[in-house]
Amino acid sequence: MPMQFDPPSGTRDFLAAELETRERAFAVIHAVYTGYGFEPLQTPAFERLDVLLGKYGDEGDKLVFKILRRGEHEASGEADLALRYDLTVPLARVAAAYGSQLPSPYKRYAIGSVWRADRPGKGRYREFVQCDLDTLGSRSALADAEVLCAQNDVLGELGIPAFAIQLNSRLVLSGLLEVFGVPADLGPGVLATLDKLDKLPPADGELVEVLAAPDSAERVRAALKLSEQGAAGLDQVDRLLSLVAGQVPRGRISFTPSMVRGLSYYTGPIWEATAPGVPGSIAGGGRYDHLIADLGGPDLPGTGGSLGIERLLLLMPGGQAGRRGRLDVAVTVMSDDLAGRSFALAGAARAAGLRAGIYLGASGRLGRQLKWASDQGARWCLIYGSAEDAAGTVTVRDMDSGEQSAVPAAELTSYLASVGSAGRP
Amino acid sequence: MPMQFDPPSGTRDFLAAELETRERAFAVIHAVYTGYGFEPLQTPAFERLDVLLGKYGDEGDKLVFKILRRGEHEASGEADLALRYDLTVPLARVAAAYGSQLPSPYKRYAIGSVWRADRPGKGRYREFVQCDLDTLGSRSALADAEVLCAQNDVLGELGIPAFAIQLNSRLVLSGLLEVFGVPADLGPGVLATLDKLDKLPPADGELVEVLAAPDSAERVRAALKLSEQGAAGLDQVDRLLSLVAGQVPRGRISFTPSMVRGLSYYTGPIWEATAPGVPGSIAGGGRYDHLIADLGGPDLPGTGGSLGIERLLLLMPGGQAGRRGRLDVAVTVMSDDLAGRSFALAGAARAAGLRAGIYLGASGRLGRQLKWASDQGARWCLIYGSAEDAAGTVTVRDMDSGEQSAVPAAELTSYLASVGSAGRP
Repeated sequence: MPMQFDPPSGTRDFLAAELETRERAFAVIHAVYTGYGFEPLQTPAFERLDVLLGKYGDEGDKLVFKILRRGEHEASGEADLALRYDLTVPLARVAAAYGSQLPSPYKRYAIGSVWRADRPGKGRYREFVQCDLDTLGSRSALADAEVLCAQNDVLGELGIPAFAIQLNSRLVLSGLLEVFGVPADLGPGVLATLDKLDKLPPADGELVEVLAAPDSAERVRAALKLSEQGAAGLDQVDRLLSLVAGQVPRGRISFTPSMVRGLSYYTGPIWEATAPGVPGSIAGGGRYDHLIADLGGPDLPGTGGSLGIERLLLLMPGGQAGRRGRLDVAVTVMSDDLAGRSFALAGAARAAGLRAGIYLGASGRLGRQLKWASDQGARWCLIYGSAEDAAGTVTVRDMDSGEQSAVPAAELTSYLASVGSAGRP
Repeated sequence: MPMQFDPPSGTRDFLAAELETRERAFAVIHAVYTGYGFEPLQTPAFERLDVLLGKYGDEGDKLVFKILRRGEHEASGEADLALRYDLTVPLARVAAAYGSQLPSPYKRYAIGSVWRADRPGKGRYREFVQCDLDTLGSRSALADAEVLCAQNDVLGELGIPAFAIQLNSRLVLSGLLEVFGVPADLGPGVLATLDKLDKLPPADGELVEVLAAPDSAERVRAALKLSEQGAAGLDQVDRLLSLVAGQVPRGRISFTPSMVRGLSYYTGPIWEATAPGVPGSIAGGGRYDHLIADLGGPDLPGTGGSLGIERLLLLMPGGQAGRRGRLDVAVTVMSDDLAGRSFALAGAARAAGLRAGIYLGASGRLGRQLKWASDQGARWCLIYGSAEDAAGTVTVRDMDSGEQSAVPAAELTSYLASVGSAGRP
């Protein structure tokens, strides 16, 4: 059978350079979310099939990767497990499973792969990472504000340029439909249109006209006063704007009554972040007070948000620029007899807190080994040949300047610790 | 359909406390392996079925979790993908796929989940993490020594008590079989017996007797001189012992001619680490010069090792002892009107580098909120009520001593930064 060496369609291998950027982003997210008192949660890659199916609609169900039963049951062709499709259904299961063992409210974040059998395409993967942040068990607007601010902090610390946050409330949308007399069964269609206002020619209909008007915000505010739901939604938006005012710069966040967010489960404030140069949103979230119960979990109000981490990675500045080499210290091996001494020198360099590796090739030529040291991005090369062995020294070569110093072997660790902490010029 | 809330059989949910211990261990492994110049690799959770099947023997093939084809093909009951069973076959695929784009030799580590449809049991999981370290493309004994020392360093830095490393070579084993006239087709059976010497009553047969003797090492050394293979194996062992002597304490590593390691693919030195209190090995590795080609990759010599991370986690000292609380700073909310100010105070505490969260419950009572602050493990509680609002101060309560200070609101960040950096008494 011919064997392909690419990873399966829609998945990726991450080699060192790309992984470094990804891990850096995850470390920022971890630090920011921990800074708000959110705690991590990790659930298995797969769930029982009945836990997942029926939670994502018919279209979603089709995209679930199902795992064949094993052993004698394999021949049945049936599945009993499935790869997780998101991190929210597992959260609902965990909330049901651990109940009172969890802190209340339960503030958790999760960074993990999810799998969807989507048609692979540019920027669309079958295996990708989701970064979720949720608070279960609080109705407080402060909980919404925490999620929003934490997401804002992550985008800032990742260095995402010129991002903007659109804020709205599902109650604002319901209020608008009510005030402009859109029949309830037309609602979803109109909502979809609202979300694409910037992409469509002005449609007719008074509501769409109002939303597209230059003085839209004021006209919407005036209209919302006519509906109880609308007024309540406006209060939610204004409360949240006021809570985050000290932490999200004024121009960055704005009331955007035409912003809908696709998912149907939101019940209160909703928000989305966008950035120039990438289509769609880079982050989003909102309040969902019935979702956890709908997913089979306990009846807990919730609020949360998600980062579009694959898009954010594209926007992060200086991906390669700050890359370190593989090694700080590269150690030559000038002869088999001296290999043991060279190996010990690498250990001494590590004891000084430096990354150190030894030449593993077969060439005894110094030029070849210096080329290797340079390929590793090493800052220093330690040379230990018969001359050094006789003199009891190690030659330390600065790979930037080419300068070499003879350092007494016994002093190598302290020498490297002192130059190492001085930082690269 | 009744829904169970446990994770699927053989898998685990990791809540914050356990996850913290695991992440701490992974961080140590990452730091040590990076310190030797190994670079990370991450491959997809699943591979094409033909990449995996036939690589682990018939028994292994049965333990592979297979993924059902999707869409119209689902009805066929066939699988085309499978969850990875280890991290070695994906390494062979990557070596084939990226060839010259990889550094040579390619020193990589991988920390990732693997899945096996084993019967779940105590300490045996269907989803568990493997930590692999491998060098492809070098025949140097220094490459073996690097892997062995890096594993030794990890065990040391994880604080594993009293572990010991057994060293042997496959050539030693072949030499012994030759010298003691064990027919080649009996070899595998004898090897299996050797590996269980400490568990079995002394079997008859001269070889087993020699290995079980108190002066076994010397008698084995004498016997090995009679075989070319055996002598070469002994040289490998002695070379490796000498290379690692400066970094692995003398009593910790020893030549153990009866140590076999189960896997058939090793071709040179092999080693295993054990620790009192856990059965089996906690780490192991060896040289395998044909495996990568056998797995469908390029013909590269290799050496590598794996950590039994799930066992190591059981042996790590002080799992819970060093646990921090969720928050450094807990902020009260004394009234709705003041909630915005309290929210800003939490932001100020984060600006001082502290983890800070705000009370999200509905109670306005200070006692209740102090209880919450204590539950978070907070070191300080910030109280901001109408008295503080009028005075322009924040009450900072030391949660250990109960002492309270009135700090001018404008000075809060610098105050917290100074007390925060002083460290907990």
